[in-house]
Amino acid sequence: MNTLLKNILHNSKQCDILVEGNKFKTIAAANTIASVDAKVVDCSGLAILPPFYNAHCHAAMTLLRGFADDMPLFKWLSEYIWPTEAKLDDELIYAGSRLAILEMIKSGTVFFSDMYWRRTNTIRAAKEMGVRATVGVTIAENLDSLTHVEENFEFLKNHKEYESDLVKIAAMPHAIYTCGAKLYERCAQVAQDEGLVLHTHLAETAQEVSDCYAKYGKSPVALMADVGALGKNFVAAHCVHIDENDMRLLAESGSTAVHNPMSNLKLASGIFPMAGAIKSGMKIALGTDGASSNNNLDMHEEMKIAAVLAKVNDPEVLPAEMALQMATRNAALAYGFDAGEIAEGRLADCLLIDMNNERLVPNYHLISNWVYSADSRCIRHVMCNGKFVMENGRVEGEEDILAHANSVVKRLV
Amino acid sequence: MNTLLKNILHNSKQCDILVEGNKFKTIAAANTIASVDAKVVDCSGLAILPPFYNAHCHAAMTLLRGFADDMPLFKWLSEYIWPTEAKLDDELIYAGSRLAILEMIKSGTVFFSDMYWRRTNTIRAAKEMGVRATVGVTIAENLDSLTHVEENFEFLKNHKEYESDLVKIAAMPHAIYTCGAKLYERCAQVAQDEGLVLHTHLAETAQEVSDCYAKYGKSPVALMADVGALGKNFVAAHCVHIDENDMRLLAESGSTAVHNPMSNLKLASGIFPMAGAIKSGMKIALGTDGASSNNNLDMHEEMKIAAVLAKVNDPEVLPAEMALQMATRNAALAYGFDAGEIAEGRLADCLLIDMNNERLVPNYHLISNWVYSADSRCIRHVMCNGKFVMENGRVEGEEDILAHANSVVKRLV
Repeated sequence: MNTLLKNILHNSKQCDILVEGNKFKTIAAANTIASVDAKVVDCSGLAILPPFYNAHCHAAMTLLRGFADDMPLFKWLSEYIWPTEAKLDDELIYAGSRLAILEMIKSGTVFFSDMYWRRTNTIRAAKEMGVRATVGVTIAENLDSLTHVEENFEFLKNHKEYESDLVKIAAMPHAIYTCGAKLYERCAQVAQDEGLVLHTHLAETAQEVSDCYAKYGKSPVALMADVGALGKNFVAAHCVHIDENDMRLLAESGSTAVHNPMSNLKLASGIFPMAGAIKSGMKIALGTDGASSNNNLDMHEEMKIAAVLAKVNDPEVLPAEMALQMATRNAALAYGFDAGEIAEGRLADCLLIDMNNERLVPNYHLISNWVYSADSRCIRHVMCNGKFVMENGRVEGEEDILAHANSVVKRLV
Repeated sequence: MNTLLKNILHNSKQCDILVEGNKFKTIAAANTIASVDAKVVDCSGLAILPPFYNAHCHAAMTLLRGFADDMPLFKWLSEYIWPTEAKLDDELIYAGSRLAILEMIKSGTVFFSDMYWRRTNTIRAAKEMGVRATVGVTIAENLDSLTHVEENFEFLKNHKEYESDLVKIAAMPHAIYTCGAKLYERCAQVAQDEGLVLHTHLAETAQEVSDCYAKYGKSPVALMADVGALGKNFVAAHCVHIDENDMRLLAESGSTAVHNPMSNLKLASGIFPMAGAIKSGMKIALGTDGASSNNNLDMHEEMKIAAVLAKVNDPEVLPAEMALQMATRNAALAYGFDAGEIAEGRLADCLLIDMNNERLVPNYHLISNWVYSADSRCIRHVMCNGKFVMENGRVEGEEDILAHANSVVKRLV
């Protein structure tokens, strides 16, 4: 099924946009695309923008949203998060993943990178709901009640069985405090052999960095260089505590860092060194982290807070256009799909936003309004891979997803 | 007209709430309020929360939303903001104030403190739209094309002429770099004589503080103490650069500081010292500042970012309940009205929020979900002073307000 978006605002001009299959086929001036075999959508009063791609998430943790807040990290993990996570079974992970995807679609996100457990349930949820996902095989030797290292490597070798056009598998060693250097080497090797993304938590806290120096005599990023992890397929979440040499290593290898500003602030991890990171030329994407440390999955919030946090030191370092790119195309490129830009030939992912929302008035600069003023209420329709996953604010099956989540959490608490 | 809110979630219990005139008269268990002469509103699936009170704003600057971003403060002011502001006439201020109030209502705010020019237009807009406002008489000797000091003091003495139940007048000397100590003394005196709030920008930037030391040999807060400004009616916007002695002076005098985190980050002013401020016992409210430095008027964003910014240094210093209080009741008390709490006898201001919004699921702790996860899409109805100003997401006259704003800005640029 093709779709013709009639009379839509794109780059300050009224356009017609033809979506053929899963791609933007033609972008032309309004009323210049001759009649085609396509569903015609009247987009008067709407503008088209790229949707968000969430480069670091733990989707099923939406079930722990608001469960424990306002306490130090270790107490939060050991007394609340870990004991509760141990109770998560297949049904809970499926319900939590669906709730997360619903929330992401409603706030304009059509891709997430997921690091969690019982991954087949998240894969199922993503496939059913029509969004893109890179679902991780989470690997950790110190959390062995939850992971089974050999089974995980088996799964990675059979990744094609589980994948689809939209859903991919990645190797996700959890962190340097739960995986040794040898295990990272093995993960890097399998990722290279199988053409997979390699994703990990890295340099999230000052403690992690000082422990790494104590154990290995080098920084977490330098350790990643040693084990052969760095490269175009390497995506490191957080990178809050990195120095100039780390930035150079990440930049030269074509690796991507994922900035998760809300989570880093809320968990007292620190503030990502945006100015230096941009100057180094390293690739930067944005993520929400899990809903238990945020407590939502709203990429728009991350984009705005990333932009203003950077400005407190230098108002010119991260303009709106660059913040938008971090929240959209940079993550697509890191995870290996050609989207995040409204352009002919790109994958047809987009948001149609309501230019009559008061937060977009007046409209001097749409991107500025979008980054600094909008919120999820501005989003009317969401398209992923040529298909609408939200129309007029509604996602198919949303009542059922909410009822299921509300019902299963009774087993958690 | 009285209103009976039937079967509404309040403090984790299903309740009936009777609003009589402009106050919460009775809060009782669901289905226990006998039939009364009231409009009955079925609130199943909704929770009641206090609305936001915006303690520092320049409402009509919504007309400059997105007009100039991502540049240093002085260039922003001198090349973009000031030349454009000089063109603002009565109609533009009225249109901008209405747009601001519309945006505030839609995001759950029913009071704003406004410091701007041509104030009668803002007073008119607030009265027409049924919200609370404290509208400032902005006083500055160095901006004399815009202000006329003697006329302003005349206006302050006649404040009752312009006031209503919901709209009050305040003395607002602009800042210590536009008003001398003598002028502050005079403002403090008239505020005391007339029973008015005294509101000013204070200690917003490091430059302002070092200039103040150079000129007066003391900090901006200490200067305020000298001119007799401090006291229960004193509300100081920003206070980013204050030391322990400043905090003690503010706390002991019962003054209120207004934290505007988005604007302070975006304009590179710095970060409010929340931990020390809380420890000192000083009163703290939240504000959005103007839409040209934010770029919206969404108090929910300010509340969340205030909470997580404080946590980056100490995850326990500002729990969700306290952040909510800063965004609600603290501003009401600073500006002298008894609201911001859903309790019998308080003014009937409230939000009715949709418990079926995915961002409020699961519901372990509603206040945590509200502060850390929600956005404006969760708000179904907004009540101010016993009357609905938004019902089912709609504000009366909103199309006209947007059309008017879009039309008048053509004269600006």
